[in-house]
Amino acid sequence: MSSFESADRFLVVPRVWHDALIAATYRRRGYAEDESTAAGQNAAEAARHGIRTHNGIKALHIESKHRAGGGGAVPHAAVSRRPGRFSASEVWDANRKLGQIVAQEAIETCIRLAEVHGIGQVSVDNAFHYLWGGGYVMEAARRGYIAYTNCTAARAEVVPFGGRAPTLGTNPHSWAFPTCDVVGFPIVIDWATSVIAMGRIDHCRREGHLLPPGAAVDADGAPTVDPAKAAALLPFGAHKGYGLGLVNELMAAFIGGSLPTLRAGDSQPGEKHTSTFYFQVIHPDAIAGSFASGRTQRENVGAVLADILGHGNENARLPGQNEATAAARSDANGGLLFTAAEIAELNLLATENRSPALEPARLKPAL
Amino acid sequence: MSSFESADRFLVVPRVWHDALIAATYRRRGYAEDESTAAGQNAAEAARHGIRTHNGIKALHIESKHRAGGGGAVPHAAVSRRPGRFSASEVWDANRKLGQIVAQEAIETCIRLAEVHGIGQVSVDNAFHYLWGGGYVMEAARRGYIAYTNCTAARAEVVPFGGRAPTLGTNPHSWAFPTCDVVGFPIVIDWATSVIAMGRIDHCRREGHLLPPGAAVDADGAPTVDPAKAAALLPFGAHKGYGLGLVNELMAAFIGGSLPTLRAGDSQPGEKHTSTFYFQVIHPDAIAGSFASGRTQRENVGAVLADILGHGNENARLPGQNEATAAARSDANGGLLFTAAEIAELNLLATENRSPALEPARLKPAL
Repeated sequence: MSSFESADRFLVVPRVWHDALIAATYRRRGYAEDESTAAGQNAAEAARHGIRTHNGIKALHIESKHRAGGGGAVPHAAVSRRPGRFSASEVWDANRKLGQIVAQEAIETCIRLAEVHGIGQVSVDNAFHYLWGGGYVMEAARRGYIAYTNCTAARAEVVPFGGRAPTLGTNPHSWAFPTCDVVGFPIVIDWATSVIAMGRIDHCRREGHLLPPGAAVDADGAPTVDPAKAAALLPFGAHKGYGLGLVNELMAAFIGGSLPTLRAGDSQPGEKHTSTFYFQVIHPDAIAGSFASGRTQRENVGAVLADILGHGNENARLPGQNEATAAARSDANGGLLFTAAEIAELNLLATENRSPALEPARLKPAL
Repeated sequence: MSSFESADRFLVVPRVWHDALIAATYRRRGYAEDESTAAGQNAAEAARHGIRTHNGIKALHIESKHRAGGGGAVPHAAVSRRPGRFSASEVWDANRKLGQIVAQEAIETCIRLAEVHGIGQVSVDNAFHYLWGGGYVMEAARRGYIAYTNCTAARAEVVPFGGRAPTLGTNPHSWAFPTCDVVGFPIVIDWATSVIAMGRIDHCRREGHLLPPGAAVDADGAPTVDPAKAAALLPFGAHKGYGLGLVNELMAAFIGGSLPTLRAGDSQPGEKHTSTFYFQVIHPDAIAGSFASGRTQRENVGAVLADILGHGNENARLPGQNEATAAARSDANGGLLFTAAEIAELNLLATENRSPALEPARLKPAL
């Protein structure tokens, strides 16, 4: 996840303009009001938290790219909730409904189940990209819950440890913990299981940079740092990251995902090309034992985190801290931060929507 | 986890002798019959699966080391199960009961909860080392369930990403999937969140080997490959492995674990020095959607795995495959495989128990 911590210069985009633009674009593409709003919300929160790889521009690009390929999201699709005999679990068929609204509703359902059972899970078959997974679990954590999600990526780009061909998705995991009243923000552990994203290879190729070692292989499966030769990605942490990427594929396979190498492929009769989502929420009261020195649960979490970041570790950061810093910067600037190049892309959407574009010269530079 | 795939030469130890020896040693140290049997079982299965880092020798060594330090397991301790309002969750206080029997019972309880709710969790406060975490989830997977466990390690040996001082445990994660009828063994993803274990540093120091780069730091927090200078471990995969190690500390902090740097420390009034366990079981039927081409869920999992290991990836291995190969080798040899040095340690225990030792010269070399 690239954040604002780069040499890029940012301008302040009014959030009202941004949210209206993203929602209007989804509506123009045929999506329902609630679908468009959910997508706009996820995009705004991603931008606000400095998640530039999963902002509205990326979301709308993915939407149109997949629609053109025949495997896109289906506007106005209804989620089928399969009744089952398991009281803390729901299985949904998303019927390729837009991922952002499905993810929001799945997390709500997990919260409802966790309130009764201490833990709740929703698995989602026939899903369409939910963009920023960290956003859904972060929201649950902000409301006091431990939350987790994983999904399968749309394309098989990652080579299994010891193999040569990409047969795994970049398969992200996202965990969030309710630590707002402890450290001021939810701790969010949220990353893909490849060392880098495919977009980074394109970026390095354009900019003439080498790739980090151990991140990519060429068409023969041999390691390379040359972005021009890179054909596939490697999992982070050798067999350990491979195992983590496999967790998503296995969850997907039990849920209803089909062959990973087919996901981005042409439609075949009887086959499935969709991703799956898995959501889980844990109520912190449902795992609470006793705490030392008369501390409450939250005080105990605070003491443990202070211990981890003490002893000379003041330079270590908590996962989620970059996102919190980015959000504070956005809020202090009174809007969402985008580069001039990103604003040009947003303006293109505005023109397509026949709505007013922004004049970059009139926008405040971000502090 | 080192396995049999080394240059070491193995002899075949009769399982009956081994299991009787381990259980008798626990009984001699004051443990109850069922505690001793559970510990013997975990040790035998670890040895059988080639998990040499968590066999009976290691288990008994940890038991006596911690007992001497005052923070050991408590023979005959009773688990207090705290009744709660959450139907798919139980919170246990292990009162420092021997970890192996607690873990076995916790997984049984999770299975029972998952049969009703689709998912079940047990958190365990005041726990004592369960040794081979992979063994408990592997057993659940063999019986048809998806299972997960994590725990906090007894000592803070790992430096947070960006820090200098060890304030995190090696904090392992273990996932297992019911794939026996698909690939012949349960897929088990089971590793610590450090690049290497502390024992590897001792080993390299003894053998005059350098450490792998990025695995350890010296007393000032600077990276080193010199085992004589190594003072602490680094997480695997930079910030990603750090985040994974933090997941265990956070779960522990919500359950009741206290400061990680206190865990191995001297007893302080009002403080807690114990580890915590977290267990979770998912019923595969509770996440099942629909499957392409008329496949059953298991057939679908098989098709997905064949896809991942196809396309030129025949040399890639599935996590759990090494353990399955080791178990098959043990079974083919009709016993458990140990080196002469390991057998000398087992014989020492036998002598202490006043039970018959093995004569290495009379043991079959392992095929």
